[in-house]
Amino acid sequence: MATHKLLLLPGDGIGPEVMGEVEKIVSWLSKEGVASFETERDLVGGAAYDTHGKSISDETMRLADAADAVLFGAVGGAKWASVPYEHRPEAGLLRLRKDLGLFANLRPAICYPALASASSLKPELVEGLDIVIVRELTGGVYFGEPKEIVTLENGEKRAVDTQLYTTGEIDRIARVAFDLARKRRNKVSSAEKHNVMKSGVLWKEVVTRVHAQDFSDVTLEHVLADNCAMQLVRYPKQYDVIVCDNLFGDILSDVAAMLTGSLGMLPSASLGAEDPQTGKRKALYEPVHGSAPDIAGRGLANPIAMIGSLAMCLRYSFGLIEAADRLEAAITEALASGSRTKDIASEGANAVSTSEMGDAIVAAL
Amino acid sequence: MATHKLLLLPGDGIGPEVMGEVEKIVSWLSKEGVASFETERDLVGGAAYDTHGKSISDETMRLADAADAVLFGAVGGAKWASVPYEHRPEAGLLRLRKDLGLFANLRPAICYPALASASSLKPELVEGLDIVIVRELTGGVYFGEPKEIVTLENGEKRAVDTQLYTTGEIDRIARVAFDLARKRRNKVSSAEKHNVMKSGVLWKEVVTRVHAQDFSDVTLEHVLADNCAMQLVRYPKQYDVIVCDNLFGDILSDVAAMLTGSLGMLPSASLGAEDPQTGKRKALYEPVHGSAPDIAGRGLANPIAMIGSLAMCLRYSFGLIEAADRLEAAITEALASGSRTKDIASEGANAVSTSEMGDAIVAAL
Ligand SMILES: CC(C)[C@H](C(=O)O)[C@@H](O)C(=O)O
Ligand SMILES: CC(C)[C@H](C(=O)O)[C@@H](O)C(=O)O
Repeated sequence: MATHKLLLLPGDGIGPEVMGEVEKIVSWLSKEGVASFETERDLVGGAAYDTHGKSISDETMRLADAADAVLFGAVGGAKWASVPYEHRPEAGLLRLRKDLGLFANLRPAICYPALASASSLKPELVEGLDIVIVRELTGGVYFGEPKEIVTLENGEKRAVDTQLYTTGEIDRIARVAFDLARKRRNKVSSAEKHNVMKSGVLWKEVVTRVHAQDFSDVTLEHVLADNCAMQLVRYPKQYDVIVCDNLFGDILSDVAAMLTGSLGMLPSASLGAEDPQTGKRKALYEPVHGSAPDIAGRGLANPIAMIGSLAMCLRYSFGLIEAADRLEAAITEALASGSRTKDIASEGANAVSTSEMGDAIVAAL
Repeated sequence: MATHKLLLLPGDGIGPEVMGEVEKIVSWLSKEGVASFETERDLVGGAAYDTHGKSISDETMRLADAADAVLFGAVGGAKWASVPYEHRPEAGLLRLRKDLGLFANLRPAICYPALASASSLKPELVEGLDIVIVRELTGGVYFGEPKEIVTLENGEKRAVDTQLYTTGEIDRIARVAFDLARKRRNKVSSAEKHNVMKSGVLWKEVVTRVHAQDFSDVTLEHVLADNCAMQLVRYPKQYDVIVCDNLFGDILSDVAAMLTGSLGMLPSASLGAEDPQTGKRKALYEPVHGSAPDIAGRGLANPIAMIGSLAMCLRYSFGLIEAADRLEAAITEALASGSRTKDIASEGANAVSTSEMGDAIVAAL
């Protein structure tokens, strides 16, 4: 049995707590002989800054590069509000994404039947919801240069960020979206602002070409990003796969996440290109939620997004499809049998702790 | 009685239909002696392109500059999908915003009691909702240079848009938001991405300073734009005034708009700086909705957003507070008495036409 090298980077806030539940599952999978793992644990974000003066150390980057997959918790918090920009906790995550070449961020938004009533939306609008946002993750305004604040002669400051996309960057993310749609309901909605942004013009042009050349069996629609945000609230089930740039993906995936009732539910996968030699791809898996410092350390966090991220890891990085299916089924079952962390419990109802939720999922395995 | 010079730019799609209802109200106000108007009507968007080969002519710009206020319908449509970028219908609107210096875009999202059930959100989450998005409208990625697509040596293309903000641009929009909050529930939420964008860092810094210097009586909170989008869906009533940049404002205001049940309901005001001599400010009023070519010309459009924009015009440009209150009350009354265009009618219920809705509002005046 192959041994899978996993790097665990719990990060800040609730990161360590939800990662603890992932470790339970990993132990269970090893013990049951489902798969064999070699895990390491390291610091990232504010925790790394406090220790190394950097939000991720070069040694941690080396470990991430050598691992078969990285499991990432969450980073950030008011505690680090005044550290220099290049050392802010988020910089560690952005470096991982960029330096590992994780250009494809898959963010499924699935509404668990047991939780349809937890959504802000009327239940009939979200029951059965199953969409995926495919977000470009290593380009756009997140990384374009210049990115700076300069002081002008009159004493004013001027801040610049640069939204930058090349044909190649759009081409490869479009292919990920179309490939994925083929395994699903065969529809891709491409969101941009071609009416205002040149990057939107190029985005639309390249997606249209890739579609015509290699994916004309998939239904493609173009939608303006502002309209897409609105449509996600109006009638989310019209979507299957939404593909968009880094910044729009950041916002649209948060909206999509909220539709499902709790941000504590949603996993994500960030994938690199397949190595033509080995067929392997770099990958990082993280919950969509943040570090939630306000509830950290109190056993209140919902570990499902993190555990779901492990399931995506089993599926995409290790090809352990059966184990992934089983883990996802265990999550569904734990929910169906009534286990609820505070974020998804109905008002007044009893909530279980982070660790009890993890145990319920292990028990359902 | 002063005569107010109004320029009407109906534009494309449903623009002319909804503008027609505004003209009814303007006639009524003149006839009743509430105010005296001098109106002109001109082309903009695709309609202007078809006639002049430009989405707005210099002559129209001259009229807009000379008017006391511009009422704008909507522009765009698939018909003009392949006109050159600089002539696309939206360019006419962007030129108006930029050349008239309309930096402050006020987008109220109010949930009319009669319509709470039309929202996708559960009624209790939107009943009584009353928030305003204050969107910076003449800066950011909409106008920053370079903004171009270049062909690289390897044949690939590269698209660039530039997000650009200066201290002064942020300062003045922050003041608009704080001033407005003082007349409301005294709270401003400033949305940016300071964790990723240098413009976000400067945004947060300047808003914080303006607040400390001149508005410390107003409650200020900072929120990441992605989180803000999510919170708008989760619990919108936590907000009073949200202030943000041009692109975030575009998206957040569409989300906020949708919460109210129909995009066909929401007006907006785009204001310039006050002239220190005359105390006047340039202004343009437009519905938040687009040109909806799919329903154009069929009497299906909801004219309320456009009529509400006239109410904002009476209030902000002409100081006709009583008339504005009266017009807004007439909208509420027409809704309360059951008039519904198709977008806000319950399924299967009878809907009124664009013109019948306008008549119902005139009747309620
Ligand atoms: C933490 C932050 C840098 C990050 C982003 O903006 O990408 C987060 O919001 C996300 O969506 O993963
Ligand atoms: C039509 C378009 C240029 C415009 C924008 O992006 O600003 C619209 O979406 C809006 O919100 O007013």
